[in-house]
Amino acid sequence: MTHSRTVELEGHIIDSGTLQRCFGAVMDLGGSFDVEEFDVGKHETEVSYCRLTVTADDAETLRAILHELHQNGAVLENPSDVELVAAPADRVVPPNFYTTTNHPTEVLYDGEWIEVERIEMDCALVVEPGEESREGGSDRPRAYTKVLNAVEKGDLVATDRSGIRVRPPERPRSGGGAFGFMQGGVSAERPSESTIREVAEELREVNETGGNVMVVAGPAVIHSGAGDALADLVEAGYVDALSAGNGFATHDLERSLYGTSLGMNVETLEHPRKGHKHHIWTISEIIRAGGIAAAVDEGIITDGVMYQCVENDVDTVLAGSIRDDGPLPDTITDAIEAQNAIREQAHEADIVLMLATLLHSVAVGNCLPSTTKTVCVDINPATVTQLLDRGSAQAVGMVTDIGTFVPTLAEYVLEGAAESESARADTADDA
Amino acid sequence: MTHSRTVELEGHIIDSGTLQRCFGAVMDLGGSFDVEEFDVGKHETEVSYCRLTVTADDAETLRAILHELHQNGAVLENPSDVELVAAPADRVVPPNFYTTTNHPTEVLYDGEWIEVERIEMDCALVVEPGEESREGGSDRPRAYTKVLNAVEKGDLVATDRSGIRVRPPERPRSGGGAFGFMQGGVSAERPSESTIREVAEELREVNETGGNVMVVAGPAVIHSGAGDALADLVEAGYVDALSAGNGFATHDLERSLYGTSLGMNVETLEHPRKGHKHHIWTISEIIRAGGIAAAVDEGIITDGVMYQCVENDVDTVLAGSIRDDGPLPDTITDAIEAQNAIREQAHEADIVLMLATLLHSVAVGNCLPSTTKTVCVDINPATVTQLLDRGSAQAVGMVTDIGTFVPTLAEYVLEGAAESESARADTADDA
Amino acid sequence: MTHSRTVELEGHIIDSGTLQRCFGAVMDLGGSFDVEEFDVGKHETEVSYCRLTVTADDAETLRAILHELHQNGAVLENPSDVELVAAPADRVVPPNFYTTTNHPTEVLYDGEWIEVERIEMDCALVVEPGEESREGGSDRPRAYTKVLNAVEKGDLVATDRSGIRVRPPERPRSGGGAFGFMQGGVSAERPSESTIREVAEELREVNETGGNVMVVAGPAVIHSGAGDALADLVEAGYVDALSAGNGFATHDLERSLYGTSLGMNVETLEHPRKGHKHHIWTISEIIRAGGIAAAVDEGIITDGVMYQCVENDVDTVLAGSIRDDGPLPDTITDAIEAQNAIREQAHEADIVLMLATLLHSVAVGNCLPSTTKTVCVDINPATVTQLLDRGSAQAVGMVTDIGTFVPTLAEYVLEGAAESESARADTADDA
Amino acid sequence: MTHSRTVELEGHIIDSGTLQRCFGAVMDLGGSFDVEEFDVGKHETEVSYCRLTVTADDAETLRAILHELHQNGAVLENPSDVELVAAPADRVVPPNFYTTTNHPTEVLYDGEWIEVERIEMDCALVVEPGEESREGGSDRPRAYTKVLNAVEKGDLVATDRSGIRVRPPERPRSGGGAFGFMQGGVSAERPSESTIREVAEELREVNETGGNVMVVAGPAVIHSGAGDALADLVEAGYVDALSAGNGFATHDLERSLYGTSLGMNVETLEHPRKGHKHHIWTISEIIRAGGIAAAVDEGIITDGVMYQCVENDVDTVLAGSIRDDGPLPDTITDAIEAQNAIREQAHEADIVLMLATLLHSVAVGNCLPSTTKTVCVDINPATVTQLLDRGSAQAVGMVTDIGTFVPTLAEYVLEGAAESESARADTADDA
Repeated sequence: MTHSRTVELEGHIIDSGTLQRCFGAVMDLGGSFDVEEFDVGKHETEVSYCRLTVTADDAETLRAILHELHQNGAVLENPSDVELVAAPADRVVPPNFYTTTNHPTEVLYDGEWIEVERIEMDCALVVEPGEESREGGSDRPRAYTKVLNAVEKGDLVATDRSGIRVRPPERPRSGGGAFGFMQGGVSAERPSESTIREVAEELREVNETGGNVMVVAGPAVIHSGAGDALADLVEAGYVDALSAGNGFATHDLERSLYGTSLGMNVETLEHPRKGHKHHIWTISEIIRAGGIAAAVDEGIITDGVMYQCVENDVDTVLAGSIRDDGPLPDTITDAIEAQNAIREQAHEADIVLMLATLLHSVAVGNCLPSTTKTVCVDINPATVTQLLDRGSAQAVGMVTDIGTFVPTLAEYVLEGAAESESARADTADDA
Repeated sequence: MTHSRTVELEGHIIDSGTLQRCFGAVMDLGGSFDVEEFDVGKHETEVSYCRLTVTADDAETLRAILHELHQNGAVLENPSDVELVAAPADRVVPPNFYTTTNHPTEVLYDGEWIEVERIEMDCALVVEPGEESREGGSDRPRAYTKVLNAVEKGDLVATDRSGIRVRPPERPRSGGGAFGFMQGGVSAERPSESTIREVAEELREVNETGGNVMVVAGPAVIHSGAGDALADLVEAGYVDALSAGNGFATHDLERSLYGTSLGMNVETLEHPRKGHKHHIWTISEIIRAGGIAAAVDEGIITDGVMYQCVENDVDTVLAGSIRDDGPLPDTITDAIEAQNAIREQAHEADIVLMLATLLHSVAVGNCLPSTTKTVCVDINPATVTQLLDRGSAQAVGMVTDIGTFVPTLAEYVLEGAAESESARADTADDA
Repeated sequence: MTHSRTVELEGHIIDSGTLQRCFGAVMDLGGSFDVEEFDVGKHETEVSYCRLTVTADDAETLRAILHELHQNGAVLENPSDVELVAAPADRVVPPNFYTTTNHPTEVLYDGEWIEVERIEMDCALVVEPGEESREGGSDRPRAYTKVLNAVEKGDLVATDRSGIRVRPPERPRSGGGAFGFMQGGVSAERPSESTIREVAEELREVNETGGNVMVVAGPAVIHSGAGDALADLVEAGYVDALSAGNGFATHDLERSLYGTSLGMNVETLEHPRKGHKHHIWTISEIIRAGGIAAAVDEGIITDGVMYQCVENDVDTVLAGSIRDDGPLPDTITDAIEAQNAIREQAHEADIVLMLATLLHSVAVGNCLPSTTKTVCVDINPATVTQLLDRGSAQAVGMVTDIGTFVPTLAEYVLEGAAESESARADTADDA
Repeated sequence: MTHSRTVELEGHIIDSGTLQRCFGAVMDLGGSFDVEEFDVGKHETEVSYCRLTVTADDAETLRAILHELHQNGAVLENPSDVELVAAPADRVVPPNFYTTTNHPTEVLYDGEWIEVERIEMDCALVVEPGEESREGGSDRPRAYTKVLNAVEKGDLVATDRSGIRVRPPERPRSGGGAFGFMQGGVSAERPSESTIREVAEELREVNETGGNVMVVAGPAVIHSGAGDALADLVEAGYVDALSAGNGFATHDLERSLYGTSLGMNVETLEHPRKGHKHHIWTISEIIRAGGIAAAVDEGIITDGVMYQCVENDVDTVLAGSIRDDGPLPDTITDAIEAQNAIREQAHEADIVLMLATLLHSVAVGNCLPSTTKTVCVDINPATVTQLLDRGSAQAVGMVTDIGTFVPTLAEYVLEGAAESESARADTADDA
C-alpha cells in the first residue's frame, strides 16, 4: 500500500532552487511525485506556484520526504492547526517535537498563522496561548523558539505533524555583488581588494542606517597584526557587539601591556621566540585588577580592541573554552550561560563579521536566522565552507589573510566615511 | 531600443537545475524574460519544456545572456544552420569562433543535426562537409573538436552565431550513491570506507563490462606507500591506461631499485633523511638502460607499478613538466605532444581515477567529456573542489589519504572479484 | 654598563639541539657569550658540558636571554634557593611569578633539588614546606604546579629569579621510528600504512605493559564511519580514557539510535541530506533517559563508542563548548570544571591519541608533560602542525583521513594481539 | 669487522645546527662516533672545529653516513683529488657519479680546491681540465654543474668518492628579521603587514644596490585582482625577471582585452559566471597578432603585467605545461628547453619572489643555490612549507592572500621609494 500527501509551493521557487531541491528530495528518498498544478511566473518578478502529490511505499519514507519538502517551504494542502504537547519535565520535550530551521517560520494556531519569534535552528517551538486579561481584553498568542536546555515543564511544544510553515530565503531580484545567494562553496579565485571594498560599503550602509554590526573575532586577528585596525573600527563606532573568547582578549591586552602577541612584537617582528610568558602574566595582571574594565579604569590598559570596547560601551561577550589559559575574570566559563549571551547578541545583529575563528563563528551561526547577512573570513577554506554551509541567504566567504583583510577593510570603511562626510560638507556649502 | 530572442529548453530541466541556472543567468546579466510556454513533467520521469523570450537593453548583453543559456542547453527557436568560416592560417581561428563545452553537442548543418565527435571543452568546432565519393555515393559530413594549436588553414570553423546545441548532463532518475550529480563542493564528512567500497564496485562493474579504466597518479601515491596496491590493481587487469608524470615513474622505479621513495624505505620507515640521491641515480640507471621497458627486459626493474604496466601492456603516458629531474627517456617533454597523448587516453576512458595529482588531473580533466565518470582523491580539499568544478556529471570527490585509499580500494576490488569468482564457481557446481 | 651571568648546560646538548638553541637565543636577543668551558661527549652516549657567560647591554635584555636559556635547561652557576612569595589573594599571584614549562622541573628549596609534581605548562609553581609532624618526624617539602585559577591566598608561589631548573627532552640514543624527536613539522609524504602499523605496535606495547591509553576524539571520527573501529578498540580494552565533546557523543549515540551520523547512514551512504534532525532527537532521548549510562542500562543505546565506554568502565570526560546543541546531561558545561577533569586524565596518560579534533586536543595538550607520547591525526596539516608544536618529546603527526586511519589502526592492533596470543599459545604447547 | 673514517667540520657549526645534524645522522643511520678534537668558538663570532671518527659495521652504512656528513659540510681528513670518469655516452653518467647539493661547493683537482660554478642541486659535476694554450700559457681548470640531460659523451664527471666539499649556509651573526635562517616550518601566526614591510625593504635594497629581482607568478595573482599592483612594480623597475606560465600571461592579457580574469570583472565583481570563453578568445587574438610583443606593438594590449614587461624589457620566460590552453605563441612548450631558460634566470637572481604558484616555484627553486634569498607566498600552507623545505638559507614564507599581499607590497615599495627620493632631495637642498 502506498502513502500520499499533497503539498504546495509558492514564490520564486524556480530560480531560488526550491523546486529543484524538492523534486530531487523526492527522488533521492525513493518516492515519486505528480504535479497537479503548475503556474510559472511569466516574468522574473512574478511568483510561481506548484501543487504536487508525493507518494511513497511506506509511511516512514513519506514522512522523511515531507520533512525535506517542509524545510524547503512546502506546505501541506489544507493544513490543520499545530499540535502542541506540554513538556513533561524541565528539558524534556515530547516525542516528535518539531525542531526549527533558521528560516522565518509561522505556526497555524487557532486557524491563524502566527510568526515565530527569535528564529534559530535546532530549537523547540513553544506556543503561548493568548490569555484572557484581567481587563476583559485578551493577549494574543505568541510562538517562539526555545533551546532544549531552556524548555520548562508545561511548555506547550509543537510536534512536527502539521500547522507549521517556513519561508526559505529567495534569490534577490537584483544581483547581490559580493554577497552571494545561498552559496555553499567558496572561491579563492575572487579579486580580494574589490571584495573587501564591497564588504566595507555594506558595513557603512548598515552603520549609517542605524543597523547593528556584530564582530566575531579569533586570536589570529591579534597575532596577525590586525588589532589596531579593528580597534580603529570600534573607536569610529562601526562595531556594536563583539563576540570573542578568552584568547582573543588576552592577546589584545598583552599587546597593550607588553607590545607583543604570543611573545612576538607585531610591529618590529623582534623576539619571535617560543615560550614567552607574556600572556600568562597578562592574565595575572587583569585578575589582580579585577577585570578588563577595572584595568582600563586604572590606566593599566590604554589601547587596543578591548580598551576601545570598554571606552565605547560595545556589547562584549567573552565566551570560555576548555583550551583557555587563566581565564580572565570577564570570561563566561559556563557554555550554556555563554551561549545565552551570544544568542542575545546574534538576535540583535543586522550583519555579522566572522573573523578567523571557527569555534565562535559556529556558536554565533547557530543562533542566527538565515536572513542575517554574514561575512566569513578565514585563511582555511574548510572553515569558510563550513560557515557558509549554515545557510545564510546573503553571505560573503573569503579565503584570505586576516592580517591584511582587517586593515584593508578599516581603510575602506574609514576613507569611505571621510568621503561621505566631505561630500555632505560640500553639499552644505553649496546650500 | 531593446533586443530580444526566444529560446527553448527541454528535458529534466527542473531537477537538473537547468531552469534555475537559466533564470538566474538572465537576472544576473541584467536582462529580463517572459515565459511563453511551460509544460512541466507531471511525473519524475517525464520531461519538461519551456519556451522563453529574453530581452536586454543592448545587443552585447543579449549576446552574453544567450551564451549562458546556450551552455545550459537552450536552443534558439527556429535555429538556422551553423555558420562556418575557413581558418585564415594555421592556428588562427575566425573572430567569434565557437568554443566548445564538455557536453554532448550537435551542429545543424544542411538542415540536419550532426553529433560532434571527440567532445572536449575550450576547443574550436570544425565541420567537414560530406564529399562526393568516386563511386558516385557521398561521405556524410562530420563535425569534431580541434584544440587551437591543431587548427589548420582552411578548416571550416564554426562561429558562435547559431546552429549549435548542447545537452548538459541531466540528473539521473535513480539515486547516484557516492557518485553525486554535478556536485561542486566536497564534504569531508562522508564515511570513508563506505565511499571507497562504492568506488570499488563501480570499478569492477566498468571492468567486467569491458569498459576502460584510466588512472591518473601523482608521486604521492608512491611516497605514501600505496604503490604496491596500485601495482596489484594493474596486475589484476583493472587498469587500462595510466597517465602520470616523470616524478611518479621515477619514485616507483626508485622503490624497485633501492626500496625507497624520496630516500625513505616505505616499509620500515628507516633512513628518513633528506638529501638522498636515489631518485637521481634511478633516472641515470634507466637512461643507461635506454628506457623503462628496456630496464624491465634486462631484469633491472622487477616490480612496482611501472613494471606491471610494461608486463600488462597498459597504455602509459608520462607527461613532462618543468619541475622534473632527468627526465626519464620515456617522458614526453613537449607539452603539446603530451596533451595529445593524454587526449587519446581520455577519450577512451569510461571512468577516470585521479589520485593525488592536481597538474595531471587538470590536464586529463581538460580533455574529458562531461559524461565520463570521475573519482578525485586528494588530501587537499582545494584540489578536489577544483577538479569537481570541471563539471563531470557523475563524480566522486574524496578528501582522504592516498596512502590508505589505494590499499583499501585494492582490497575491496580484489576481494569483490574473488567473491564473484567463487559465486560463479558455486553456480557452475550447482549446474 | 653591561650585565653578565654565567650559566651551565649539561647532557646530550649537541644532538638534542640545546646548544644550538641557546647560542641562537643569545644572538637573536642581542646579547653576546663567552664559552668558559666546554667538554664534548666523546662518544654518542657520553654527555657534554658547557659553561658560558652571557652579556647584555641592559638588565632587561639579560633577563630575557636567561629566561630563554632556562627554558632550554640552562642553570645559573651557583644557584640560590627558589624565591617564594605568598599569594595575596585567591587567583592572584605575585609579580614575576614563575610560569612552568611542560618539561620535568626541579626547585632548589632549603639547599635541595625537589622534583616538581603534576608537570604542566603555563602554571604557577607552588611549594609546600615540610612540616614538623606530631610524632616528631617531619613531612618532606613538596612542589607542584597550579593553574592560575586554582591559586589560593597564602600559597607559596615561586618567582622567576632563581632556584629552578628544567630538563628539556633529549634526543633518544636509538632511532625513534615513526615517533620523531621534537619534530615541529609534519610531512604528508610518509608511508601511511607503515606509520599506522608503528602506532599500533606502540599502542599494544603500552597496553601490555599496563600503561594508560588516552583517546581524544572529535565528531569526524563518527561522520567518517570510523566509530565501529574505535568501539572495537574500546571493547578490546585498548582505551583507558576517552576525552571528547558533546558533538562526538551525540553523533555516536545518533548512530546507535538511528543508524546515521548528521543524518547520513554511514554504511549505505543513503539519505545524504542536510537538515535532518536526528542529532537533536538523540539529545532529547538521552535527556529523557537521564544520561548516557542510564540510556545504556535501559537498553536504548546498544552499541557504539559511548556504549562500549559505559560497558567497559572507561574514564570518560565530555567537555562542553559554546557550539554544542543540547547538551547531553553528561556534558560538563563549565570550562574550568571540564579542564580539571581533562587534567586528571592527561596526568594519568602514557600515550595520547588525538583524533580529528583541534579544540579538545589543544585542551589535553595544555595539560600534558613533554614526556608523554602523542599521536596527532587530522586531515588538516595546520592542525597537526599546531599540535606537534606543543613540544612533546616523542610524537607522531599524520595528515590523513580519520575514516581510514582508525579502522586500519584497529585492524593492526587487534590482529597483532591475536598473533601474540597465538604465539603465546604455541610456546605454551611447546612447554 | 668495522669500518671507520675521520672527518672534519669547521665554522659556526653549533648555532647553524651542523653539529646536531651530523651527530644525529650517525646515530640515525646506525653508526657510532668518537670526537677526536673539539675547539669551541669562545665568542659568537669565532668559528668552532670538530674532528670525529665515524664507525659503522659495514661499508655500505659507513658510505651512507659519510654521504650525510658530506652534505652538512664535513670533509674527509686528508682528502684526495676528485675522481673523474668520462661519460660513456650522451646523457649517461658513470656509476657512483656525484650529485650536487645547492650549497657552495669546491672540488679538489690537482691538489687545489676549485669553486664549482652554476651551483644547482641534483646535477652532475663536470670538471674541465686546464689546457695548454697556444701562446704557451695555460687556461685554469673549471668545474661546473650539468643537469643529467645535458651531459655529453666524454664529459669528465666527478664520482662521489672524494675530493669534494660543500659549505652549507651558516646562521647569520645578526638577526634576520622576517628572513629566517633555514626555517622549515611556516607560522601563519605572524603579523602580516609588518612582514610585508620587511619584504618591501629587502626588495628596495636589492634594487638600489643593482641586484636582480626575479618574480615567479601564478594565475592567482591575476584572478585575485593583484595584477595592477604587480604591473606597477614592473613599471617602476623593481622586477628584472618574470618567470610564469601560459595561464598567468593569458589571464593578464584577458584583463587587458576584456577587463575580466576567468570571466570575472576584477574591479566590479560583475558577471561572476562560469563558462565564459574570454581566455580562449584572448589566446586566439594573440596567436593572430603573432605573439605578445607584437600585440603590444599593434596596440592591442595596452596595460597589465605582460604589457609592462614588454615595455620595460623585463627578461620573461613563459613555461608551458600540460594543463595549458592554447598555448600562446610565446610559451615554451618543451619542458627541457623551458627549464634551461628558467635556469638562466635563476642563476642571475639575487632575490626571488614566489607568488602563488607551486609548479613554477618548484621549477625555479630546483635551479637556485641555497644562498639566494627567497620569499614564498601562498594561501596554502602546504605549498609554502614545501617551497621552504628546499633549503634556502634566508627565506620568508607567508601564508597569506596574494590578492592583498601584492598591492600592500607595491604600496610599501613605492612609498618607500618616494620617501628615499624626497630624503635625497632634502639632502641635496641642504648641500
